[in-house]
Amino acid sequence: MTLKIALAQTNFLVGNIAANVDNIVKAAIHARDDLGADMIVFPELTVTGYPAEDLLFRSDFITAANNALYQIADRVAGIALVIGFPEREDDKLYNSAAVLHQGAIVACYRKRALPNYGVFDEQRYFTAGDQPCVFEFNGRFIGLTICEDVWRTGIIEDNKQAGAELLLTLNASPFNSGKIHQREDIVCRQVKAAQLPLVYVNQVGGQDELIFDGASFVVNADGDIVFRAAEFKEQLSVVEFDGNQPIKSTCAPLYNQISSEYQALVLGIKDYVRKNGFQGAILGLSGGIDSALVLALAVDALGADKVEAVLLPSRYTQDMSNEDAVLEAQLLGVHYHSIPIEPAVKAFTGMLADIFVGTAKDATEENIQARCRGVVLMALSNKQGKLLLTTGNKSEMSVGYATLYGDMSGGFAPIKDVPKLLVYQLACYRNSISQVIPERVITRPPSAELAPDQIDADSLPPYDVLDPILERYIEKDQAADEIIAAGFSRADVARAISLVDRNEYKRRQSPPGIRITERAFGRDRRYPITSGYKGI
Amino acid sequence: MTLKIALAQTNFLVGNIAANVDNIVKAAIHARDDLGADMIVFPELTVTGYPAEDLLFRSDFITAANNALYQIADRVAGIALVIGFPEREDDKLYNSAAVLHQGAIVACYRKRALPNYGVFDEQRYFTAGDQPCVFEFNGRFIGLTICEDVWRTGIIEDNKQAGAELLLTLNASPFNSGKIHQREDIVCRQVKAAQLPLVYVNQVGGQDELIFDGASFVVNADGDIVFRAAEFKEQLSVVEFDGNQPIKSTCAPLYNQISSEYQALVLGIKDYVRKNGFQGAILGLSGGIDSALVLALAVDALGADKVEAVLLPSRYTQDMSNEDAVLEAQLLGVHYHSIPIEPAVKAFTGMLADIFVGTAKDATEENIQARCRGVVLMALSNKQGKLLLTTGNKSEMSVGYATLYGDMSGGFAPIKDVPKLLVYQLACYRNSISQVIPERVITRPPSAELAPDQIDADSLPPYDVLDPILERYIEKDQAADEIIAAGFSRADVARAISLVDRNEYKRRQSPPGIRITERAFGRDRRYPITSGYKGI
Repeated sequence: MTLKIALAQTNFLVGNIAANVDNIVKAAIHARDDLGADMIVFPELTVTGYPAEDLLFRSDFITAANNALYQIADRVAGIALVIGFPEREDDKLYNSAAVLHQGAIVACYRKRALPNYGVFDEQRYFTAGDQPCVFEFNGRFIGLTICEDVWRTGIIEDNKQAGAELLLTLNASPFNSGKIHQREDIVCRQVKAAQLPLVYVNQVGGQDELIFDGASFVVNADGDIVFRAAEFKEQLSVVEFDGNQPIKSTCAPLYNQISSEYQALVLGIKDYVRKNGFQGAILGLSGGIDSALVLALAVDALGADKVEAVLLPSRYTQDMSNEDAVLEAQLLGVHYHSIPIEPAVKAFTGMLADIFVGTAKDATEENIQARCRGVVLMALSNKQGKLLLTTGNKSEMSVGYATLYGDMSGGFAPIKDVPKLLVYQLACYRNSISQVIPERVITRPPSAELAPDQIDADSLPPYDVLDPILERYIEKDQAADEIIAAGFSRADVARAISLVDRNEYKRRQSPPGIRITERAFGRDRRYPITSGYKGI
Repeated sequence: MTLKIALAQTNFLVGNIAANVDNIVKAAIHARDDLGADMIVFPELTVTGYPAEDLLFRSDFITAANNALYQIADRVAGIALVIGFPEREDDKLYNSAAVLHQGAIVACYRKRALPNYGVFDEQRYFTAGDQPCVFEFNGRFIGLTICEDVWRTGIIEDNKQAGAELLLTLNASPFNSGKIHQREDIVCRQVKAAQLPLVYVNQVGGQDELIFDGASFVVNADGDIVFRAAEFKEQLSVVEFDGNQPIKSTCAPLYNQISSEYQALVLGIKDYVRKNGFQGAILGLSGGIDSALVLALAVDALGADKVEAVLLPSRYTQDMSNEDAVLEAQLLGVHYHSIPIEPAVKAFTGMLADIFVGTAKDATEENIQARCRGVVLMALSNKQGKLLLTTGNKSEMSVGYATLYGDMSGGFAPIKDVPKLLVYQLACYRNSISQVIPERVITRPPSAELAPDQIDADSLPPYDVLDPILERYIEKDQAADEIIAAGFSRADVARAISLVDRNEYKRRQSPPGIRITERAFGRDRRYPITSGYKGI
């Protein structure tokens, strides 16, 4: 006997339970009526979206999420729904998956493996379940699992032992570069070992720092992927099962690494703007590579008509910077203004002259310029209800080569987790689709243009040295000696590490940005500001 | 036979293992030689400081912390040391307490109750221990516990069952208003029930958002406190035990609530400045109550010579504001400047005139003023290496009545967790010691002075209505209906809640500040920015 299971790869808004309920019902009816599905499986914590963070401590919120289940059960019949929700029992909360069928909750599973590392804080909110849940549906025994469960050893096996012939997994598995291969490898290996076919449904969409990449899939008992949904897109698809074996269906091809990183950034911008109700986005265009990439990403995410660029030249801005910035805006068809910052810089210089008399020029004067730009950009953002995009990259964020309240101003920092070398690669990748970033922007030496003839290499090791050091220190937690042993000079390592150590205070006040590496700043890497730790 | 136990209520720098080792050794030798102590007990995770956050993921850091134990054991004999450290075994980390005696580790306990709520993330780092640890010392059986252990039921009892005659507790228990009573009540009740005398050693000092208040104590088997160390101060004291019973000693009196809140804020500023190596502090003085209080706190923390005040009047600043600001600086003997912001405001207005032509004035123009102040203050901070103190209070932070990169600029926000009504109470408290805040600052209606004749009450419910609503919504997670049922108008509740909901993005970029309530913004209350949750 065949069974048709719909995989609902949805992009829901965290916290909007009423809208999520409507969308669940709509998807179920569509799956039932148009796709002939017998069952529809949604992502982890469907009803609330993931991660709802401390909203999960709100009693009203949890009550609404639990009531939602009954509302859904009342509104849909003729198809079984597998839905994630925060289940309250007495004073405990579980990360649960319920099966709704013909108006009743016929099974309910409590997640056993609660991740509490990296960006995950599930033990802050949830109590772990302690047993598998296998239910009968149309003569089949189906097991339920949730996300981390299938990354651990033992839980798939437990389901097998409990009689499961087929496994469903509800997920909110966030993207980072290369994650999809890791995810499929681990799941397929475990499935093959247990000989238990598995349906894996992942959510999709941007949620603050996190991108969920979708790419839901179905694995047969031999560990072969027989269906894969698209990455970075909502999709509702049906896979048919003959007995317990899924019938080979379409497999969306996987993006290569650079392309998936680009798509993740585009989706992140799109969802942050859309879900937070902005009219569009605005950014400062310097003629440098970072803002050029962010402009391209923003246009790809929102459309040229929703993006506004602002040139903010100073006396140190070279002509070619202005020319390139204009060219970038023109190539992408983006409306731009140019607002020289000199009047404001002069005003501040005058206001501070008496106090600064006799002091040497230092970073203070550079910061004033960056902050004048920040004030103008924020004024435009405030007046028009457009999101200001911050254009700093991960290398800068790491070493603090950025001005707090200056170029760090903005509501969202799309490339905050993109190291400088990857910025170049992403720019070249985007240009390989169509030329939107002038060649000179890619080839000229990067400069903050805050002092005469300044280039980044005056203050920092070259990026092809700096970036690998930063990756080792920040993402891999390697010690200085380990990094030096890998072939980097002690001077470069010392310079990089001491800058990272010293600049936690800046990062703490930076806008959220899109996580694409294994370890992003923000909720992923949690360091004290006040710290006597010296990496070197 | 008597036993002398030293309680080392220390204020260590997180992350500086080498310095902490030196201080541990110094304290132990002092306790042995000058105080005749047989044993010295330190706070939780002594060697690393608490909380070390993701430094605990660094292999080099953990190696150093584990080696530190042997270094200490090598350097001190003739006194037993009870020291907290992150114990590594294989790939697991434990929050442990070791007993060092005559060059050897004679006992080691692994914390069983790992808090993972509020500001605590211990399950992110540690594996829980699963058994008590009782060791013999000078003919006595002594049990070891760590912080959360003695808040849970069962663990003290387990120690009794395992033969403990006396209990030691190593703590890093952060302050919030009223916490000390809660702490002593719970511990004394449990001690009395188990009839097991207890030595409670707490760390002291400011660490980013957290204040540790010290107030270490000793309880006899009847649950009576027979010794208490001072609050908010380092202290090394010895308590003598006759058999297993502590001999009544000195009990430092407890500060009352307002006084302890004030002390906590002073210590927070002092330690943030000192531990982060700033030359002093600077702040903008508006003539309003918030900056007046922060000035007083800063002077009490750092001394008048380390504090600099800046008046930044605009065309909307009333004369009395300038007069009062000057008077505040004079009363406290603080150096001040006045830098009118008009030239910068005029410059930006001119730069934006073409683009803003035909638009109505709105918050944009107010924000420009606030941001001009931010630029000036940050320039002074940058040039002089002084920490800029942000003067916003919790009520403002809650409803977003503050300008990002404007008055929110700064490295540290001392009264960020102080609701406006409490700001007034603290100001009056400080004046009750000596008059440093002019009476008019306390009695006049609060105003941001960013538009003609503006007062806060134009935009917000009055603070005696707003603050209780915010406390219920933010600290107690109450639903709108619950708050309304408690007697607040639907309009006020709706206004307050919707502002809180909408302004998470501002809070995410705000500087860290001192936590004094049960729920502070920052790592304590973790909300998504992108959220469809509507509290009303």
